[in-house]
Amino acid sequence: MANSTSGDSVVDRILRLIAAFPEGVTALQLSDLAARAELPLTTAHRLVRQLAGHGLLDVGPGGSVSLGLRLWELVNRNSPTLELRQAALPFMEDIQQVLNQNVNLAVLDGWEALFVERLSRRGSVANRAQVAGRMPVHVSSAGLVLMANQTHAVQMDYLDGFSDPTGKLVREDLGALLGEAAHQGYAQLAGVVDPDTWGIAVPVLDRRKRAVAALGVVVPLREVRLQALVPALQTAARGIGRRLGESRETIEFHSTESM
Amino acid sequence: MANSTSGDSVVDRILRLIAAFPEGVTALQLSDLAARAELPLTTAHRLVRQLAGHGLLDVGPGGSVSLGLRLWELVNRNSPTLELRQAALPFMEDIQQVLNQNVNLAVLDGWEALFVERLSRRGSVANRAQVAGRMPVHVSSAGLVLMANQTHAVQMDYLDGFSDPTGKLVREDLGALLGEAAHQGYAQLAGVVDPDTWGIAVPVLDRRKRAVAALGVVVPLREVRLQALVPALQTAARGIGRRLGESRETIEFHSTESM
Repeated sequence: MANSTSGDSVVDRILRLIAAFPEGVTALQLSDLAARAELPLTTAHRLVRQLAGHGLLDVGPGGSVSLGLRLWELVNRNSPTLELRQAALPFMEDIQQVLNQNVNLAVLDGWEALFVERLSRRGSVANRAQVAGRMPVHVSSAGLVLMANQTHAVQMDYLDGFSDPTGKLVREDLGALLGEAAHQGYAQLAGVVDPDTWGIAVPVLDRRKRAVAALGVVVPLREVRLQALVPALQTAARGIGRRLGESRETIEFHSTESM
Repeated sequence: MANSTSGDSVVDRILRLIAAFPEGVTALQLSDLAARAELPLTTAHRLVRQLAGHGLLDVGPGGSVSLGLRLWELVNRNSPTLELRQAALPFMEDIQQVLNQNVNLAVLDGWEALFVERLSRRGSVANRAQVAGRMPVHVSSAGLVLMANQTHAVQMDYLDGFSDPTGKLVREDLGALLGEAAHQGYAQLAGVVDPDTWGIAVPVLDRRKRAVAALGVVVPLREVRLQALVPALQTAARGIGRRLGESRETIEFHSTESM
């Protein structure tokens, strides 16, 4: 089979189609989809038909295209975040119950925090369906505490490439924030969306002491009681880290082959 | 571009790779993955590398392959179930709070109920990370009530093809169950996994009165109080149906183009 060139571009085109949906938009007309994916309409049409034939996309009665239920099922059945979320959810619920605050769990992906799970404080369940949001490292407590626990080389790489589009934060200040988060064992930061809330996050360390996630709360400013919040978060994070090692042994398949 | 044949087979091979992970298994060694996907090792190796290059798969340090964080993000950011789950979650939480029971939400996919959301009764949060489970129509109250609300033609098609591998349920009994569920407006069924629990489900009707989902509870046998459970579920289902129409208008993009 020598079609690696065309194969590669098919993969590329598939990714462009899947990535073309703006956040929270579940259906697009084909012409919109083709334009957003920067594909010719005929190419998009043909590929959408192929993908829909395999259940990776769905085409509705009015011709609107959405991600396929089968794709959603396959990805969530074997989610790369499944182990982490399964380990974390009981402890996240503890935090939610004890502190009655919004609780979130994030991983570092590039220079961004990707939120993989979220529990809202009681009475505000609406957000829960929306996970998979992203925030730049420097504007999220989860991002800061994750970066603060990376190797020196990764941190330098990040700081060297850093520039704040608003011009408010310079490299030196950011370096100081990271140093502080590493020293204190948590990061705190005023909310970006709502400046009357604060985010507080601690690292979740696996058995090899790598920071694999950040556990955080978003708290109204008047309710920030670090002496209560931080120990509770740190206790929960230790519990998650312990569970993480246990479940890995049970759900990962092993073989002698390596790539 | 005339590579529709090779393009088609690339789509097919990609699906086989993604679908090769057994439920709940998040990482496979390449040789296992190739065997399960029924692909030659060299083909699997090349395709995994391409997909990993685009973030659709991840290759770990030990050579284990998992679904990519980017794929998870893209699919959940624009989940085909997002609208339904967003509409349903506040009402599902109401049921969870008022009745303190496990609540679930399912859609019909082929002849199976696909569970797209689940809230566990307080103190048993562990299940929540595992959605995307499936159950055959005839062994789930959600499946029965969804099928009972399909057109006569769909029901006949389903019944004609039905055969129970255990031999316990015959076509006539199943037809009677569907008729009863349609007449009563709910379905109830003893648990398959745990016979001491009962599932009870009602249909969620959209504005055109199509059954787009089933809302259900799983209840210990001694706590089955239909006179309390069914009206609460039906009330919540009506609320979901109303919300569904509202949100569709805000999140779907419209254009004049159709396929």
